[in-house]
Amino acid sequence: MTWKIPASTIDRLSIYMRALDKLGLDGMETVSSLQLAELSGVNSAQLRKDLAYFGQFGTRGRGYEIKSLLQNLRKILGVDKKWKTVLIGIGNLGSALLAYPEFKEEGFEVVGAFDNSFSKVGKKLEGIKIQEIDKVEAFLKIEKIKIGIITTPATVAQEVADSLVKGGVKAILNFAPVSLNVAKGIKVKNVDLSKELESLSYFLTHKKTV
Amino acid sequence: MTWKIPASTIDRLSIYMRALDKLGLDGMETVSSLQLAELSGVNSAQLRKDLAYFGQFGTRGRGYEIKSLLQNLRKILGVDKKWKTVLIGIGNLGSALLAYPEFKEEGFEVVGAFDNSFSKVGKKLEGIKIQEIDKVEAFLKIEKIKIGIITTPATVAQEVADSLVKGGVKAILNFAPVSLNVAKGIKVKNVDLSKELESLSYFLTHKKTV
Repeated sequence: MTWKIPASTIDRLSIYMRALDKLGLDGMETVSSLQLAELSGVNSAQLRKDLAYFGQFGTRGRGYEIKSLLQNLRKILGVDKKWKTVLIGIGNLGSALLAYPEFKEEGFEVVGAFDNSFSKVGKKLEGIKIQEIDKVEAFLKIEKIKIGIITTPATVAQEVADSLVKGGVKAILNFAPVSLNVAKGIKVKNVDLSKELESLSYFLTHKKTV
Repeated sequence: MTWKIPASTIDRLSIYMRALDKLGLDGMETVSSLQLAELSGVNSAQLRKDLAYFGQFGTRGRGYEIKSLLQNLRKILGVDKKWKTVLIGIGNLGSALLAYPEFKEEGFEVVGAFDNSFSKVGKKLEGIKIQEIDKVEAFLKIEKIKIGIITTPATVAQEVADSLVKGGVKAILNFAPVSLNVAKGIKVKNVDLSKELESLSYFLTHKKTV
């Protein structure tokens, strides 16, 4: 790929994948761009533009072959293979994510859980033993893990991020409400749940006019 | 507003707001579009385009007044006022969200928590008493609540959504991995945490070429 794909396009590929998954489960074999766009909550010009970054997938008059487009999207997003991840910070949110079945379904398996609390270390959650945070770096190296998930309080998130990067992690999903400083070439994705509520308050505020 | 604003623009307004908040805390008074764009992880043309939907905010050569732009964005997103919300499903994720300080900081206050489990009903969490799910409709009407958050298992999410809508809720933040059917005029925002991981696996897969 020689040009930069917008982050919003990547986000939408996931949405298209979910819609195609659903259509496949419903026994459908092909779908028009109009239908797929509608199911995904975008307009069909946007859908076609997003897919055009990656190739020519549909057939005029016939639409998209669901199975084939799904395989292509999985390959593009890199979820045609499995990813091992670690989760740091086993509070309520960390525990919820450990038990979040969609991660595994989409190919992301949490294989290590870490915390700094003596009351948690050694306990098992969802079949995974909670380990001391000091052991994360070695664990990452042995398991060759590239993705880490941070669900710690904001105060320790940077320190945790540093350990992850030292252990060889290249991509971090950060739920702590703090912006992390990492070396170039490391990707951080911040999850901001308030943003989702803000899009709803926007909707409620402009309800009469949009 | 006479034209449709893209959802991705609304998402980015939240991001700009966070960046401006941070700059304000750092004691800055103005910011260039280049700086603000960089802090927000977008290019400055995108930033200017996003803001242009809502008016003329910056001054050529001087950039944006942080305080004033922040106030404008808060007003546009409807977070210049407080929103009361309810949370349904007090498992790990629901408990985590009840304790999520950013919701309150951004003006969203969870005032009611509901569950169907006898072992949870009556207990207090984060100062909020967990109530029986049967009582949600009446509660919503009395408190005139417009936003509901669903963190139940997928199997009961539709039923819960129906109760919320009957109670007068107009916007739902849905964490259950199921697509909800609601009447026209009701907004549902689905939170798909796997999507965030997929943008990381995309990055890792294309790391050498992007």
